[in-house]
Amino acid sequence: MLGTILYGPRDVRCEDVPEPKILKPTDAIIRLSASCICGSDLWPFRGENDVTEPKAMGHEYCGIVEEVGSEVTTVRPGQFVVGSFCLSDNTCPHCRFGFQSSCEQREFMTGAQAPLARVPLADGTLVATAEVPADDLIPGLLATSDVFGTGWYAADAARVQPGSTVVVVGDGAVGLMGVLAAKQMGAGRIIIMSRHKTRQDLALDYGATDIVAERGDAGIARIKELTANVGADSVLECVGTKESMGQAFQCARPGSMIGYVGVPHGVEFDGQQLFFSQRGMMGGPAPVRRFLPHLMDLVLDRKINPGKVFDLELPLADVAEGYRAMDERRAIKVLLRV
Amino acid sequence: MLGTILYGPRDVRCEDVPEPKILKPTDAIIRLSASCICGSDLWPFRGENDVTEPKAMGHEYCGIVEEVGSEVTTVRPGQFVVGSFCLSDNTCPHCRFGFQSSCEQREFMTGAQAPLARVPLADGTLVATAEVPADDLIPGLLATSDVFGTGWYAADAARVQPGSTVVVVGDGAVGLMGVLAAKQMGAGRIIIMSRHKTRQDLALDYGATDIVAERGDAGIARIKELTANVGADSVLECVGTKESMGQAFQCARPGSMIGYVGVPHGVEFDGQQLFFSQRGMMGGPAPVRRFLPHLMDLVLDRKINPGKVFDLELPLADVAEGYRAMDERRAIKVLLRV
Repeated sequence: MLGTILYGPRDVRCEDVPEPKILKPTDAIIRLSASCICGSDLWPFRGENDVTEPKAMGHEYCGIVEEVGSEVTTVRPGQFVVGSFCLSDNTCPHCRFGFQSSCEQREFMTGAQAPLARVPLADGTLVATAEVPADDLIPGLLATSDVFGTGWYAADAARVQPGSTVVVVGDGAVGLMGVLAAKQMGAGRIIIMSRHKTRQDLALDYGATDIVAERGDAGIARIKELTANVGADSVLECVGTKESMGQAFQCARPGSMIGYVGVPHGVEFDGQQLFFSQRGMMGGPAPVRRFLPHLMDLVLDRKINPGKVFDLELPLADVAEGYRAMDERRAIKVLLRV
Repeated sequence: MLGTILYGPRDVRCEDVPEPKILKPTDAIIRLSASCICGSDLWPFRGENDVTEPKAMGHEYCGIVEEVGSEVTTVRPGQFVVGSFCLSDNTCPHCRFGFQSSCEQREFMTGAQAPLARVPLADGTLVATAEVPADDLIPGLLATSDVFGTGWYAADAARVQPGSTVVVVGDGAVGLMGVLAAKQMGAGRIIIMSRHKTRQDLALDYGATDIVAERGDAGIARIKELTANVGADSVLECVGTKESMGQAFQCARPGSMIGYVGVPHGVEFDGQQLFFSQRGMMGGPAPVRRFLPHLMDLVLDRKINPGKVFDLELPLADVAEGYRAMDERRAIKVLLRV
């Protein structure tokens, strides 16, 4: 079958790879309904994370169960399933505490930019639907696997409340999903920092009430102006750079929470500065599995469509063009037809 | 009158100082029922914070209102009052959000190791009791002004819940108050890291269920053992050193909150490490004013006695000996008879 392998910076290829097999009795093999490219795939693509050996790419997935290992009991062949990019047993103390992304058995999904994928810890990881969903729901369901689940976690970690004022730093796919999540949680005001027309438009469609196009100090000043010099109750940090994290802190009010889901690159904090800023922080890899049943229901019931975040659709064979389109910000997020 | 002035490292003196006067119409003058020495007073005493000019010491206080400025409306002469070490207007957006310690008009109290003290922002800062309380309640009420309010905030910021497992790092006065706060909030298990018999005893009296005398890696291993390798739901960091903060992180479970109230000295965080550790953080100067009415009621109703944290009582004239006793850990916390 075709699969996606990253060989090094800017060298991602669609090529013939062996079909995945059940390796452990807790595995499942699924036939993907669609796959996609994640913003975090761009870190190694850009050479900002080391690539020491060829790497099978892709960790967002949904599709039909093809085969299950002998110990799998909660899903069966023929069912439509979604799973988190974090594989978890969903029974360990960390999972039961709602932090499946820190599962004692945690693994990260790989190899899902392909027509078939092996999902370890299938019982804990996969959530099946009652019926096979309509085709037009696939992008939205695929989004719950990571990008929407991560945006949701950012809003959850930032403790968005009904009526609260939220700032979203970052207009990438996760930031836009953060807007949608904050809206669902009843935020009264959702301010997104964005300079790109197509992203601004989608943010507004998803419930943003204000757009701040300015960056850096000018952006912070604008947020202060919009919040009567108070700052936001909740800030969603969806980038991970030193600049974006600094912006998140400056836009947050004392006593607020910053939910940070962009993997920090080159970010450091001084303890005393953090202390006197009196901002709370919660972040890390999103425990998508905690939210997955609820998010899938929202999509299946057609209450929301996180799938609109996919603004470019390509056949798997053109995956390299998909990476480039996202890298150059020509596309928000690329859906791959597998 | 007598007052306490810090001239430089290890040079604290009780000497004749002018009586305080109303300087602004929002001030009050109070006659202290008692005063005390704070762990944070030891930072400049030890030379770990610079002392560039003589400094009037003391920021914990309770007593009888002697005089009020022309704009003060909520307290009147003759009333018994307690106020926070953070002076706040209690009306600005940060105050109304419950973070009076980040009040737009915030000042820090000074000069309270004396028989009389000026309290700026009296309306926002002071909480009066219905009657003048019995003498034996004074230590407990004095404790609400800072040390107990700060321990309470640590537990609040760490989101202690009924039944939860709590680790308290630090057996100073604030850590011990953190134990008492966690107990009041219904924590099921309260583990304090302490090596000192008198502090261990008071911790047990206040509700600690487990004492860990080991430090560093051995201490962390012991906490892991006590929590079935999971870690604590909430950690109260009540010291502020690199070692104690590291311990707090290692003892916390993924998804937990660390409430940190020890002013960090020499503490830095790497963004990516923080991200993957998936610990939440909230800290800073305690918004004691938020909790003050409740904490005062707990003391006035004799439900708890945070005043037991004072294990040495000295006349104001011996304040220097009080600093030394706390510095050398001969005393947990010193009450000053003024």
